[in-house]
Amino acid sequence: MPKRPSHAYELFYWPGIQGRGEFVRLAFEAAGVPYVDVGRLPASRGGGSAAVERLLEERGPWLTPLGPPALRHGKVLVAQTAAILQWLAPRLGLVPRDEGSRLRAHQLQLTIADLVAEVHDTHHPIAVSLYYEDQRREAAHRAAFLLRERIPMYLGYLDGALDSNPNPAGKGRVLVGRGLSYVDLSTFQMVAGLRYAFPRAMARQERRVPRLGALHDRVAALPRIAAYLASERRIPFNEWGIFRHYPELDRAAKSPRRKRA
Amino acid sequence: MPKRPSHAYELFYWPGIQGRGEFVRLAFEAAGVPYVDVGRLPASRGGGSAAVERLLEERGPWLTPLGPPALRHGKVLVAQTAAILQWLAPRLGLVPRDEGSRLRAHQLQLTIADLVAEVHDTHHPIAVSLYYEDQRREAAHRAAFLLRERIPMYLGYLDGALDSNPNPAGKGRVLVGRGLSYVDLSTFQMVAGLRYAFPRAMARQERRVPRLGALHDRVAALPRIAAYLASERRIPFNEWGIFRHYPELDRAAKSPRRKRA
Repeated sequence: MPKRPSHAYELFYWPGIQGRGEFVRLAFEAAGVPYVDVGRLPASRGGGSAAVERLLEERGPWLTPLGPPALRHGKVLVAQTAAILQWLAPRLGLVPRDEGSRLRAHQLQLTIADLVAEVHDTHHPIAVSLYYEDQRREAAHRAAFLLRERIPMYLGYLDGALDSNPNPAGKGRVLVGRGLSYVDLSTFQMVAGLRYAFPRAMARQERRVPRLGALHDRVAALPRIAAYLASERRIPFNEWGIFRHYPELDRAAKSPRRKRA
Repeated sequence: MPKRPSHAYELFYWPGIQGRGEFVRLAFEAAGVPYVDVGRLPASRGGGSAAVERLLEERGPWLTPLGPPALRHGKVLVAQTAAILQWLAPRLGLVPRDEGSRLRAHQLQLTIADLVAEVHDTHHPIAVSLYYEDQRREAAHRAAFLLRERIPMYLGYLDGALDSNPNPAGKGRVLVGRGLSYVDLSTFQMVAGLRYAFPRAMARQERRVPRLGALHDRVAALPRIAAYLASERRIPFNEWGIFRHYPELDRAAKSPRRKRA
């Protein structure tokens, strides 16, 4: 494998999906800081899924990740999306310096991670090792509750967090501090993913959380992000990732099987 | 409401269950540091579920939690279990000082949080707002995969992390550094909960992860933890929390509905 400079940021994630790796990609892209997306390099350059799998087998002084994404920089190896971003964001200028802002950012990121897991498990409510097609009925039941109860709760919470930003220069516009942070980028990704997966449900729901939609649109228009989204580096949403468009799940909200108020 | 000293640690969590609050309680108990378990105080002293609910409605300079547990100390309010422990552990002497150890601890705690969420969703695979009894069939399907695939994966990973602790004085005995950390306490809680919920399945599985069982037993024997477990402060496991004993789910591993290798 050719040697890359030891000061390079190396992201390890599966090559064919946005997945949880996308939250890390967006941070690098917004900051304009170069990174190596190892899984998307050709195998001849030490990349591909095999490189990600090798990392999960590697034994060294740092904790071996249970799964990707993982980020390597020099001697540091860090996994778990929220932990990666917490470590990385100060180095990219994507979070304010004060402890209050950093605590706020990390809590919001962990809340987004909870929603991401709930969205993923909606198309896989029984087992990640089964195909969606083998758990469609259960997925439809779960989707009804996701769309009626869970997504409104999370979106309302994040919309409220925009309004409760204690920094007067950022209030209503960004989630932490006065300027763009990694949490805004993750929120952009979450709104984009939900719009892809559930276009009908989101068209209705976004009326009640206008600040979130506006944040999505402002992030998408940032020159570096706009260039990234138009590039081949942005993997299109697809039905192997977290946010999947199954029209039958988008319609599920109409008839939840609900027994308890 | 009577005023408590502003330097007190106040934990906000539902009073009737161990739940996610237990990971925080164990840290205080192991450190021998006093804390106020606000939800378990009588209403006449400003406690009870109502006090937890008030916190979730409160608007202030710190992020309002989406849900408990939350910890207040002076002007700091922090929610999300892993974020609480990351903030709290240095103050309780429950994590080493160096960055590598702290990163390792946080990643392991986030991985435990992932397992906790998977265990919870096993008895609620369709919706948290439905009773278990309304999703029993789906729960049995999911439990089969949880016990066959997911729990072995997580337990094997954590057992391996004990062995890969880069500190020679802690290797094989604790997960981070040379002495007890909050991650060991959380691992204790996870093993205790899994033993309660799935006694048959765990009796088989623990044979393959002997270091984890030994860690559980050493933590349980620590004088402060032993005293806590014997006290009324330790809420018994029950069928309202995360780890629930439904015998039909413990037996589910025998016949997973599995179509894909």
